[in-house]
Amino acid sequence: MVEDRLTRSLDALGGVEDDIEKVEKEVELIRLSKLSPIYERRSRAISGVDGFWKVVLSQHSDFANYVRAADLKYVDCIKSIDIKWLCLENKNKDYRDVAISFEFEGIDGDFEAQVVTKYFTIEHDTSMFKYRGKRTEEDDLRDQELGFLTSKPCAIKWPKSYDGINPSLVSDKTSAKGKKDYRTGMKSFFSWFMWTGLKIGKEFSNGDGFANLLTDDIFPNSTKYYTEAQVDLEDENIDDEDISDGPIEMDSEESGSNGSSDETGTSSKKRKL
Amino acid sequence: MVEDRLTRSLDALGGVEDDIEKVEKEVELIRLSKLSPIYERRSRAISGVDGFWKVVLSQHSDFANYVRAADLKYVDCIKSIDIKWLCLENKNKDYRDVAISFEFEGIDGDFEAQVVTKYFTIEHDTSMFKYRGKRTEEDDLRDQELGFLTSKPCAIKWPKSYDGINPSLVSDKTSAKGKKDYRTGMKSFFSWFMWTGLKIGKEFSNGDGFANLLTDDIFPNSTKYYTEAQVDLEDENIDDEDISDGPIEMDSEESGSNGSSDETGTSSKKRKL
Repeated sequence: MVEDRLTRSLDALGGVEDDIEKVEKEVELIRLSKLSPIYERRSRAISGVDGFWKVVLSQHSDFANYVRAADLKYVDCIKSIDIKWLCLENKNKDYRDVAISFEFEGIDGDFEAQVVTKYFTIEHDTSMFKYRGKRTEEDDLRDQELGFLTSKPCAIKWPKSYDGINPSLVSDKTSAKGKKDYRTGMKSFFSWFMWTGLKIGKEFSNGDGFANLLTDDIFPNSTKYYTEAQVDLEDENIDDEDISDGPIEMDSEESGSNGSSDETGTSSKKRKL
Repeated sequence: MVEDRLTRSLDALGGVEDDIEKVEKEVELIRLSKLSPIYERRSRAISGVDGFWKVVLSQHSDFANYVRAADLKYVDCIKSIDIKWLCLENKNKDYRDVAISFEFEGIDGDFEAQVVTKYFTIEHDTSMFKYRGKRTEEDDLRDQELGFLTSKPCAIKWPKSYDGINPSLVSDKTSAKGKKDYRTGMKSFFSWFMWTGLKIGKEFSNGDGFANLLTDDIFPNSTKYYTEAQVDLEDENIDDEDISDGPIEMDSEESGSNGSSDETGTSSKKRKL
């Protein structure tokens, strides 16, 4: 009898969880459909702010983890970033399915101006993996349930200066130099555009992490990061003035507590612009 | 002319941010109004699962940061936890305003069975602080903009065994023992019910962190934590059987990759039940 009550209650709990999941998806769809036209308006406003994305991407501490230092020259060519949620056009799509577009300005004689769009799709069929790397059965069970991000390779014209490391141009992959060049190229931001998510250890690593960083943080919070960068810049200018204009004034009563003030949880850190 | 375009664009960006904020609030209200009746259904299902909250609170790694080890005996008396979002009844309320209710079972001769409800309200007026601790002007500016959590002290009957440390019963707060007892009591889970958020350093510390942990994580994800605890328990039982029933079988091909498998980001860790 006690067992019966427990079983019934646990069944009811399972049903409740399914309903919560349904509501969360439904609400996410409402959220994206309301935000989407606002993001379009934002894109138009951003086009009037020169260097907006350069400032945003410089300001974000995690972005640099996904690109080589040498890539930053080309990252600075990013004129616009746009994300479309595919579920808004096709209700059968997962709400995490997105198309991420980059518009690049060119660099004369080295890098061609171009717009590229990379499509991301949530899959649940773990038999799709071509290379499994260190994936375990547990990883499979989790991914079958929650889904995992995949993507189609997307054509992008690499800079001429990268000819030596462009993986599609490295013909000799057996010599030590060839291997090294190939690996260097695979770590470049440009290799992310070839990422499929199905060849663990054999392609740009953590490509889904990079896609999620763009989709869940950098794109929605871009104005916030831009504003933070401006404030940081102003602070630096004030500091410079303080130093050149004379002694820094200290409020003796407050200085102690200021000195030990906690960091106010911002997830950003700038590289020099 | 260039300046004009930039100014116009930044103004437009500001307007866009306001609209995004409005949408996020609107969507959060939709989300809470859809989830609220489901949470009520869940509460009824949970009442049929003895020890549900004991298991959930044991499973969560962060919960223990907010209670003394000695409190766990009384944490185990929690029969139900309920959260009501106040904006659902009064649209003028901040969507982060909540009432958190605990139903306690009693312990004969020590602890009285009771239901207590603590109300939390977002405020923006930083002149309300009675003790500022190490708060800086930056903290004030941030809290004025984003708001900060406050609460009314809420009457709760302490266990008799805590008479020695119950802050309202410690009459001598000047002796070394009195100070120590008072401080010990202030660290107890029971002092959280007195927390106001306005007396930094003079009351239960990080009371807003505890309220947010309950509101944003433990309450919405309680079924998930309960299920995880059951799976962990089954795993332990299987391990025990392996040891007692004979040699552990190893799949030589898989054992290497299993050994190096990554932790799959769960934010929980159990204490012994």
